[in-house]
Amino acid sequence: KITKALTPEENASCQHGLFLQDGQKRVDYILTYPVREPSEGRCSQRSEQRLTESTVTHSACHSPQIQGGDLQLHQLQRRDASSAVAYVEMGCVEENNNSQEDHRSLKREEFEEKLRKMGLEIEKDEKALVPGVGFVKIHAPWNVLCREAELMKLKMPTKKVYEVKQSTGVVKTISSLVNKALELLHPHVDEHQQTSIKHLSHTFSRDKQHLFDLSDKDNFFDSKTRSSIFYFSAQLLYEEWANYSVFYKYQPIGLVRKYFGEKIGLYFAWLGLYTQMLILASLVGVIVFLYGCATVNDNIPSMEICHPKNNITMCPLCDRVCSYWKLSTSCGTARASYLFDNPATVFFSIFMALWAAMFMEHWKRKQMQLNYEWDLTGLEDKEQDPKRGRDGSAFILKGTVAAGGTATDLIQLTSGRHRLPAYVTNVVMMLLMIGVTFAVVFGVILYRISTQAALYMSSSPTSRSHIQLTVKTTAAIINLVIILILDEVYGAVARWLTVLEAPKNEQSFEEKLIFKTFILKFVNAFTPIFYTAFIRGRLVGRPGQYLYVFESYRAEECAHGACLMELCIQLSIIMLGKQLIQNNLFEIGIPKFKKLIRYLRSKQGSFIEEERKKKLHRYESDHFLEPFAGLVPEYMEMIIQFGFVTLFVASFPLAPLFALLNNIIEIRLDAKKFVTELRRPVATRAKDIGIWYSILRGVALVAVIINAFVISFTSDFIPRMVYQYMYSPDGSLHGFVNHTLSYFNVSHFEHGKETMDPLHLGYPVEVCRYKDYREPPWSPSPYEISKEFWAVLAVRLAFVIVFQNVVLLMNEVVDWLIPDIPKDISLQIHKENTLLVDLVMKEDRDKTRVPERGASSGTKKTYRNNNN
Amino acid sequence: KITKALTPEENASCQHGLFLQDGQKRVDYILTYPVREPSEGRCSQRSEQRLTESTVTHSACHSPQIQGGDLQLHQLQRRDASSAVAYVEMGCVEENNNSQEDHRSLKREEFEEKLRKMGLEIEKDEKALVPGVGFVKIHAPWNVLCREAELMKLKMPTKKVYEVKQSTGVVKTISSLVNKALELLHPHVDEHQQTSIKHLSHTFSRDKQHLFDLSDKDNFFDSKTRSSIFYFSAQLLYEEWANYSVFYKYQPIGLVRKYFGEKIGLYFAWLGLYTQMLILASLVGVIVFLYGCATVNDNIPSMEICHPKNNITMCPLCDRVCSYWKLSTSCGTARASYLFDNPATVFFSIFMALWAAMFMEHWKRKQMQLNYEWDLTGLEDKEQDPKRGRDGSAFILKGTVAAGGTATDLIQLTSGRHRLPAYVTNVVMMLLMIGVTFAVVFGVILYRISTQAALYMSSSPTSRSHIQLTVKTTAAIINLVIILILDEVYGAVARWLTVLEAPKNEQSFEEKLIFKTFILKFVNAFTPIFYTAFIRGRLVGRPGQYLYVFESYRAEECAHGACLMELCIQLSIIMLGKQLIQNNLFEIGIPKFKKLIRYLRSKQGSFIEEERKKKLHRYESDHFLEPFAGLVPEYMEMIIQFGFVTLFVASFPLAPLFALLNNIIEIRLDAKKFVTELRRPVATRAKDIGIWYSILRGVALVAVIINAFVISFTSDFIPRMVYQYMYSPDGSLHGFVNHTLSYFNVSHFEHGKETMDPLHLGYPVEVCRYKDYREPPWSPSPYEISKEFWAVLAVRLAFVIVFQNVVLLMNEVVDWLIPDIPKDISLQIHKENTLLVDLVMKEDRDKTRVPERGASSGTKKTYRNNNN
Repeated sequence: KITKALTPEENASCQHGLFLQDGQKRVDYILTYPVREPSEGRCSQRSEQRLTESTVTHSACHSPQIQGGDLQLHQLQRRDASSAVAYVEMGCVEENNNSQEDHRSLKREEFEEKLRKMGLEIEKDEKALVPGVGFVKIHAPWNVLCREAELMKLKMPTKKVYEVKQSTGVVKTISSLVNKALELLHPHVDEHQQTSIKHLSHTFSRDKQHLFDLSDKDNFFDSKTRSSIFYFSAQLLYEEWANYSVFYKYQPIGLVRKYFGEKIGLYFAWLGLYTQMLILASLVGVIVFLYGCATVNDNIPSMEICHPKNNITMCPLCDRVCSYWKLSTSCGTARASYLFDNPATVFFSIFMALWAAMFMEHWKRKQMQLNYEWDLTGLEDKEQDPKRGRDGSAFILKGTVAAGGTATDLIQLTSGRHRLPAYVTNVVMMLLMIGVTFAVVFGVILYRISTQAALYMSSSPTSRSHIQLTVKTTAAIINLVIILILDEVYGAVARWLTVLEAPKNEQSFEEKLIFKTFILKFVNAFTPIFYTAFIRGRLVGRPGQYLYVFESYRAEECAHGACLMELCIQLSIIMLGKQLIQNNLFEIGIPKFKKLIRYLRSKQGSFIEEERKKKLHRYESDHFLEPFAGLVPEYMEMIIQFGFVTLFVASFPLAPLFALLNNIIEIRLDAKKFVTELRRPVATRAKDIGIWYSILRGVALVAVIINAFVISFTSDFIPRMVYQYMYSPDGSLHGFVNHTLSYFNVSHFEHGKETMDPLHLGYPVEVCRYKDYREPPWSPSPYEISKEFWAVLAVRLAFVIVFQNVVLLMNEVVDWLIPDIPKDISLQIHKENTLLVDLVMKEDRDKTRVPERGASSGTKKTYRNNNN
Repeated sequence: KITKALTPEENASCQHGLFLQDGQKRVDYILTYPVREPSEGRCSQRSEQRLTESTVTHSACHSPQIQGGDLQLHQLQRRDASSAVAYVEMGCVEENNNSQEDHRSLKREEFEEKLRKMGLEIEKDEKALVPGVGFVKIHAPWNVLCREAELMKLKMPTKKVYEVKQSTGVVKTISSLVNKALELLHPHVDEHQQTSIKHLSHTFSRDKQHLFDLSDKDNFFDSKTRSSIFYFSAQLLYEEWANYSVFYKYQPIGLVRKYFGEKIGLYFAWLGLYTQMLILASLVGVIVFLYGCATVNDNIPSMEICHPKNNITMCPLCDRVCSYWKLSTSCGTARASYLFDNPATVFFSIFMALWAAMFMEHWKRKQMQLNYEWDLTGLEDKEQDPKRGRDGSAFILKGTVAAGGTATDLIQLTSGRHRLPAYVTNVVMMLLMIGVTFAVVFGVILYRISTQAALYMSSSPTSRSHIQLTVKTTAAIINLVIILILDEVYGAVARWLTVLEAPKNEQSFEEKLIFKTFILKFVNAFTPIFYTAFIRGRLVGRPGQYLYVFESYRAEECAHGACLMELCIQLSIIMLGKQLIQNNLFEIGIPKFKKLIRYLRSKQGSFIEEERKKKLHRYESDHFLEPFAGLVPEYMEMIIQFGFVTLFVASFPLAPLFALLNNIIEIRLDAKKFVTELRRPVATRAKDIGIWYSILRGVALVAVIINAFVISFTSDFIPRMVYQYMYSPDGSLHGFVNHTLSYFNVSHFEHGKETMDPLHLGYPVEVCRYKDYREPPWSPSPYEISKEFWAVLAVRLAFVIVFQNVVLLMNEVVDWLIPDIPKDISLQIHKENTLLVDLVMKEDRDKTRVPERGASSGTKKTYRNNNN
């Protein structure tokens, strides 16, 4: 299955540099730092230093070459480092002077001393071929690994194996059939073949080493099968994962976790599950859409609008220059609007709310399963362990934090002194940023209103049909561009604010950063959509008493009864535009561009690139790869997409489909990026996706409320219902259009606002119609809000209450029905516990028997502390 | 501080029987079983056997005598027992024949054999003085304890001590002042003195025995201080806890936990926190009530009603026999109603919703703190470990389950065979029971309506004022009695249904039982209240078109505009009645009565009671105590009370006060019961209060919605608001009463329904008024629902939406603001982790040094598996 084996030379060249000078001890980790070369001037040095701002390079042989670093070990060392007040090197940003450099090198030496004290072996390599960069190779001996594994309470596989219970009889036949059918979807990776034998795991303890299979110590702290497949794993990932042609297959998550660590493994597992769940959602979404298409001709309201006999004269759409118009001209809009505003939409929003709950439940189960498979069940929560330096001031590995792995630039935080002003700055800045978003959205609205008014005035009546389109398109594009720009700005602002706040530990740093970024990006992405859904078309006033913005422009209206359609258009433009541009341009283009810059810059140096490149160790050439920027942007992108899929799904049933198409590409794109474009990130242990789960839950909750409001207030669902059951003479929707239109006596127009062309339709108009529930001119209180308005409003609000509570209740039921721990996992856990008890009991008996016989072998522990 | 020391004889007599026959090995646990005595007939034997249905007696020396059993040990053994297919003895319920008895004794021997295999030492005592009961004394040797502690990953204190950081400077002064002020509130128990030194805890491992202080092995598996205070703890609990005179003090939770185990400790900690939180709630409640009292004279609507000049003629309250009446006669009701229906009520409901959220958050923190203090942080969840017998069929210690400790009657469950029918039976029975509740409530309503109608007809007009009172009182009492009876019935039904369902393990059994019991008792307690709040007075129709029940009785109305007051009366009667009767009669009376019965029954035997009693070992006389029935009823009572406090709190601001008064008694009552009336329950480990937390959360969520509806629909808050802001000419409430009354033309009464005494008021009436929003007779659509109705309805619904979402959001904010782990605990956990790392590192270095010197001492482990 492995198509391309490495040639011996390639293999050798890759292996080279992976061992310390004795050729025996494997390099587990490499740190880099800037070196001041006496031959070079300050200027070039500074640029070099900036180049090496991310100073921890991983000894990664990237695909298709092979990587010899030890995942487990990295984790261990990261812990060492942080508990010993980690300090690698700060990038040179300020003016570089000697005393600063001395200070830094002093700190570095101090740090290296601490590493040595912990038992790590260190070798420096300042004569590397990359100028201005020093490399520190680190090897972790066996006893250090053991000690750290014990401290971390790592669960490791013991010698004891047991058979996983196989299903029998009919169930077996069925499951084997299903497996065969799914065979094609699984990647060609050994791990996926269902094994019937599993190693019993136990918390590692040096006193119990006899329990574990230590025959291959070099690979013990990798997971069990890794020793055999490891040299091919990168290559395998390249073939079977980071490849668009396998888009239809499951991901080899186990392999991903082995290569990149649990945290990144969890991200891809989550993304995979999300994408899988999207298949269901898009299927239902497409069916709902097709239902709309199929029934569009049976829709009575749009038929009534389109029927030429229903000769309804509408009031002008703008002051003076516009004239009366026939309702039948909006026939097309009415029909199109029905596609998004039909009874199936209500069903779909309820379905999507349940879908979100189901997704979350399934993720909990998946996470539990992965925790079990990856032996993380004993891992303690990080929150309980704030990693603070012992000397009071806290250093944090900001890179590790923000990047979720690679220790890059370090920041020193002064604890708690500048808290209050930082907090105030935070709140003020956040409000300011949100204010900016609102201002921008308002600006775009103004642009739309004023341009439209201007175009109405100047253009000939024949070209007016094009006006709407032009204005809408340009406005949407402006909107999109601004959103994309602000997205980048907000990311930087959130990071800056979080650094300012100086949180106490990594966990807290990451959470605060994510929280801020999420708030800002969420507001940024959804403000224009929120406006379209709930504000546009509500505050227009009525003929004779319109509401004006800046006293000259009438507030925006939706096209006749098609607010939901406008919402749909807005939503699809922002969602698709964001995905296409951010994915393709930013995620593929920018890294390529940055790599090019990096490459060109290093070329500016005074040595022959080609020659050098050949001689470079793998870890030296990896230095030119992009550093790993963390999982935050990846998750953030997906959460915002999750928002698009759930929040306004009532108006856009195709959203899940577009998300699905995007994600199928996204998985492979991310995979490619991780395998080939980035320095291999330090593996990080994680039990769950942390704060992202809470954010997902929050979005799902908000989605329920927003969908309730979209259905009851933006769509015409409730007015139709109310008409049908309270006012319709025959229980059908016939007459509904007429019922929703109020009467206006044209003589009541304000002076100067009446149309200049009253005979535009060919006959004099006395009473025109407009869409609102108001009393007619001939009632005792003309143009007052009518009883129908209040009745519809009450039903709308009642619908919101019922919808929200029913959906929340159904969510609780789903939560309750689907157990958090899959049944087979809970059975296996129980089996393992029983086996463990047996093991200990047996050992106990053995130990008791030995002294009875009076024999004491040298290789066995014979000391017993038994007082009975 | 210990007022009454034991006399030497008492001490000796208590100690007697607490050791095996060698006088050295302590009895840790006692099992009892029925013995067939050849001299006795079948009949008396059967009664004896029924007497000993609860067959696990604890070797408990109850207060004020001293108890020598070992809590820790019990826990260990319970685990042993259940993992080895526990079987103690079944009570004799069926016809007792020899083959059955043989079978049982065979099983018992099998079980005893298993216990022995585990290393436990067993001694039988069939010659005990209680006839028909055999006692099995069990001793767990040191090595068994060690093994089980290791398997359970118990955290035990190590030798290493560290200083808990003391606050300094001003903070210290303040906290010491506060401590001094609170001194009086703390019980006179040593544990509460703040210690500045704490033992570092570590998961117990036999290979690391040198870490632990094993100088006193007898008491090591108790908690650290217990050895010194244990012999006095029962006495202390009796003095400082189970005593009404210390009601104002904190509870000695640590001591309770040591004596009764974590599960019961958590219950009392929870109850204590709940009671503490109730102080705040009742304070605010009283203030709100006083505010109502103080402002009752400024209330414009009631002033308008009472003013004799407002000569409003109301429509008759019943058909034919009743006549028109003056609104001013309901002046008293209107004024009283204001006490419960004023703006402060809205504030109070919001406050109580937040209070519930805060209570839950505080409980999470308290639980975390207790987990830390009790070294439970490493305890694994039980759910992952279904305790199933290895031979396929599952035995469960039903007693342990249901009673939360005492293993009583055992049931053998056939796994999964009868599942489906049992499930169907469950659902059907639950629905049936709920139906019964509804039927009963409907019956009470019918009683009220019909009695009232009958009384109206027969009585003289002068006595009519007494009618209301009589009917209401009798109805309320009937209601209360039925609720109390059904409560007991439902408890039994829920248990029966759960046994039928045959859940797989203890955990599941308990959860299912609690769930069912809760549903039934909740519905039972709240159906009549729900009816009063939301149905009564809504479906009455209008004059000329009243709604009739069984075509003759008009549906119930509230007294004029006083639905909220009726709700309040109903609520207080049920709540107070339930508390008084269930607490005093059931919790004190019944156990005393049962004990008496037990005592009398045993007297029926043919031996001299007095003589025997003197000779009895403590464990034998404890056999006559009531077995521990579990915590379920205790929790259930409190949860239902929590429902009364939160669910309809908008109508009854004094509910928290009554709950507080009840709970102050309840804590000491429960304490007394646990210490003196019941057999000492087997200590059970628990990390949290389990399903009760979810139920609490559910009740708090439902409370938000119900309060929203009570405020907007039951109270007049929204109509007043709407009138003030939409209709009032001067923005005040003047004219509100008139606005809420519709007009009715008396000539429109149905034939035969009009009053027989039209001139009752002394003048002919043409138009009477009734409370509703309907069109007047002279409108184009007379008696139709008016625009005001819809407007008020819309505002009501909007209020519900806003209230619910604002309160839920505030709950989330509270949840987010209050960290789950108290800061000092999280700091201490971190400190412990750091110390542990240091300890291991130091040990590591020591070990490395020894072989370097070439020395290998015999008492130290010297075998090292170090390949470097």
